[in-house]
Amino acid sequence: MLLFDSEYLKDYTKQIFIRMGCPEEEALTAADCLNQADLRGVDSHGVARLSGYVRLWELDRLNAAPKITIVHETPSTAVLDGDKGLGLVTAPQAMKLAIEKAKIAGTGWVAVQNSNHYGIAGYHAMMALDHDMIGISMTNASPLVAPTFSKSRFLGTNPIAVAIPALHQPPFVIDMATTTVANGKLEVLQRKGQEAPLGWTQDKDGNPTTDAYSLKKGGSMLPLGGDRDHGGHKGYCLGAMVDIFSAVLSGANYGPWVPPFVSFLEPPKEQVGKGIGHFLGAIRVDAFRPAQEFKENMDNWIQTFRNAEPSAGQEKVLIPGDPERELTEERLKNGIPLHEQVVEDLRKLGESFGIEFKTTAKN
Amino acid sequence: MLLFDSEYLKDYTKQIFIRMGCPEEEALTAADCLNQADLRGVDSHGVARLSGYVRLWELDRLNAAPKITIVHETPSTAVLDGDKGLGLVTAPQAMKLAIEKAKIAGTGWVAVQNSNHYGIAGYHAMMALDHDMIGISMTNASPLVAPTFSKSRFLGTNPIAVAIPALHQPPFVIDMATTTVANGKLEVLQRKGQEAPLGWTQDKDGNPTTDAYSLKKGGSMLPLGGDRDHGGHKGYCLGAMVDIFSAVLSGANYGPWVPPFVSFLEPPKEQVGKGIGHFLGAIRVDAFRPAQEFKENMDNWIQTFRNAEPSAGQEKVLIPGDPERELTEERLKNGIPLHEQVVEDLRKLGESFGIEFKTTAKN
Repeated sequence: MLLFDSEYLKDYTKQIFIRMGCPEEEALTAADCLNQADLRGVDSHGVARLSGYVRLWELDRLNAAPKITIVHETPSTAVLDGDKGLGLVTAPQAMKLAIEKAKIAGTGWVAVQNSNHYGIAGYHAMMALDHDMIGISMTNASPLVAPTFSKSRFLGTNPIAVAIPALHQPPFVIDMATTTVANGKLEVLQRKGQEAPLGWTQDKDGNPTTDAYSLKKGGSMLPLGGDRDHGGHKGYCLGAMVDIFSAVLSGANYGPWVPPFVSFLEPPKEQVGKGIGHFLGAIRVDAFRPAQEFKENMDNWIQTFRNAEPSAGQEKVLIPGDPERELTEERLKNGIPLHEQVVEDLRKLGESFGIEFKTTAKN
Repeated sequence: MLLFDSEYLKDYTKQIFIRMGCPEEEALTAADCLNQADLRGVDSHGVARLSGYVRLWELDRLNAAPKITIVHETPSTAVLDGDKGLGLVTAPQAMKLAIEKAKIAGTGWVAVQNSNHYGIAGYHAMMALDHDMIGISMTNASPLVAPTFSKSRFLGTNPIAVAIPALHQPPFVIDMATTTVANGKLEVLQRKGQEAPLGWTQDKDGNPTTDAYSLKKGGSMLPLGGDRDHGGHKGYCLGAMVDIFSAVLSGANYGPWVPPFVSFLEPPKEQVGKGIGHFLGAIRVDAFRPAQEFKENMDNWIQTFRNAEPSAGQEKVLIPGDPERELTEERLKNGIPLHEQVVEDLRKLGESFGIEFKTTAKN
C-alpha cells in the first residue's frame, strides 16, 4: 500500500477525464465523486475504477461529452436521457434538477436512462444536504445477485443512499448495497485466503457456500439477509425495488439486461431499455416543518442513538455516516492508500494519455 | 384453529369500531385494513388485534372520531395531524391526499403525526395501484429493536411497503418489517417449543441467542441482516430511516419515545412529538413515462424474474406479493383461521358492546 495525497489524486483523475474529452466542469465533478469514494473508504469505487471508465470509453460504450436532455417532466418529476454519459456526471445533473424541483414543488424526483456506473450512491444523495433537503439516490448495476430461491444472476448490488441534514450534528448518511456485503469484501478475503461467512454468496447451483471465490466460479451474491430464514427475501425485495425505480421508471435496462461495467464482458445483444438507470430524489425538509425544528430533532435523534447502551463487548453505537466521516478525516490527513496494482494501473493509464502519474507516496 | 368467513369478520370488526364511536365510513376502512391483513396472512395485524385498539380507546389513548387536519403543505407534500385517531383511518386519509397531490404535481408525500398503529403497511401502499401510481408506506412502531452494537430497544419493526402496478400481471407488492423477522414468527416457535435461528434476536446483554423467548426476557430484535457480519447495520439504517421519515418529518415521537401499542405499557412521560408517525407516498407512473409502456415493462420484469432458474431444491422463484395473493385466494374460499384464544377474545369484546360474535366456524 502506498499513500497518496487526496487532492493530487483528484486532480490527476480530472486530467484523465479531460483527456478523454469531458468538459472541464464535468471532469471535476466526476473526479470529485471518485475522490469522495476513496476518502470515505469505498476503495472499489474510487480512483481504482478510473481505468475501467476509460476502457468503456475506448469501446465507445461511454460518451465523454454527452448532451443530457430532459425526456419528460412534471412539477416534481423528470426523466433525463444521459446520452451514454458517465453516471458520475449524469447523476449529479439529475440531482441538481431534483433540488430545483424541490425548491418549488416541495420534492423533486429524477430518473435517468442511458447512463453508466455512477460511483458511490452517497455522493449524489449528499448534494441535497446544503439545501436543507433530504437526498435519495439509487442505481441498478451489473447483474451478480440472485433472487431468493434462484441461482440466476438477475440483479445488481443495487445501492440505496439517503442523506439527512442535522443542525450541530453531522448529517445522517446511509449508503448501502442491498446485498449482504459488497463484492470488495470478497476480494479482501481472497487476498487473505479466508472463507466467507455463510449468507454472503451461493455456488452456481444455488447452494450455501463459504468459498470466497464462489462468484468467480459461476455463483451469485445473496440479497441482504442471506437465506430465506434470515430475511434474504427482504433484501431481494429492496434490490428489485431499486431496479424498478432506476430502470422501469426511466426506460433503462433492468434485471439481467443491465450492461456490465467491466469492458471484457459484452452487453447483452437484446436491450429492453437504454444503458443503466438511476433514481434521484430531493425532499425539502421545510416542505414538512420548519427546517430549524427538523434539524433540532435530528440532533436529538442522533445524540440519543449515539448514547444507546452498547452490547457486551462493544464500545459504542454508530450513526449512519460515522465510519465514513472518521475515515475521511484520517485520509485527508494521512493520505489515501492504494494497492501497488492500482498504482501501476494509474501510471500506465497516464502514460497512454501523456500524463505522468507521480508514484511518490505522500508520506 | 377455527375458520371464519372473511366478510363476516370484516363486518363484525366494522360494528365494533362503530360502537367505539367511529363514523361508519371510517369504521369500514379500518375494518377493511384489518381484514386485508388476515387475508394476506399477516395474522398478527388482523382481527386478532381488534381488542388491542379497543383497549387503547378505553384508556383515552386513541380518538375514535378524530378531526384530521392539514398542518402544512406544498404542491407535493403535506403533514397531517391525526388527532390521536386510528392509524387505520389516518393513513388511508393521508394516502388519499398523496394521490390527489400526485395527480397535479407528479408525486405526493404525506407525513402523519399524532397517530396510532396503522395495521399492515401494504394496505395503504396498495391504494395507489388503481390510479396507475406507485404507493409507498412506512410507519414507526413500539421500540423492540436494538441498533447494531447496542442492547437498547430504540426502534420499532418499522415496516416499508411499496406497491407497483403492472398490466396483465398482478402488481408487485413489498410489505416488510426492517427486522430479520416479525415478532409473530417468534410466537410460532414458542408455541412449538423450538429455538430461533441465530440473527433473529439477542439477549438482554446484546449477546447472540437462539432463545425464542429472549424478547420476553429483556432482549431485543435484530435489524434485517442480524449481526454486523451479515449486514445487520444495513437493517439498522433502514429502520432508522423509516423512523426519521415517519416521525422527524411529521413531528411525531421517534426512537425510544414511540408510545407502545399494548395498553398495559404506559407511554413514556416525556414526549418529543405527538403520537406515532407515518409516511405515505404516491408516484404517478406517467409523471415519468406513459403508463402503458411502464406497465408493459413491469409485466416483462415480473415474467422474467418468475422464470429465473430455481436453486437446487427449490420449486420456483417468487415475485414480491405472490405469497400474500395466493393466500388471499385460499382464505377467501376456505375462510380465515383464528386461534381459539382470538375467538374467545372477540366473543368477549362483542359481549362488552352488546354484539354477538358467532363462533360457528364457516366450514
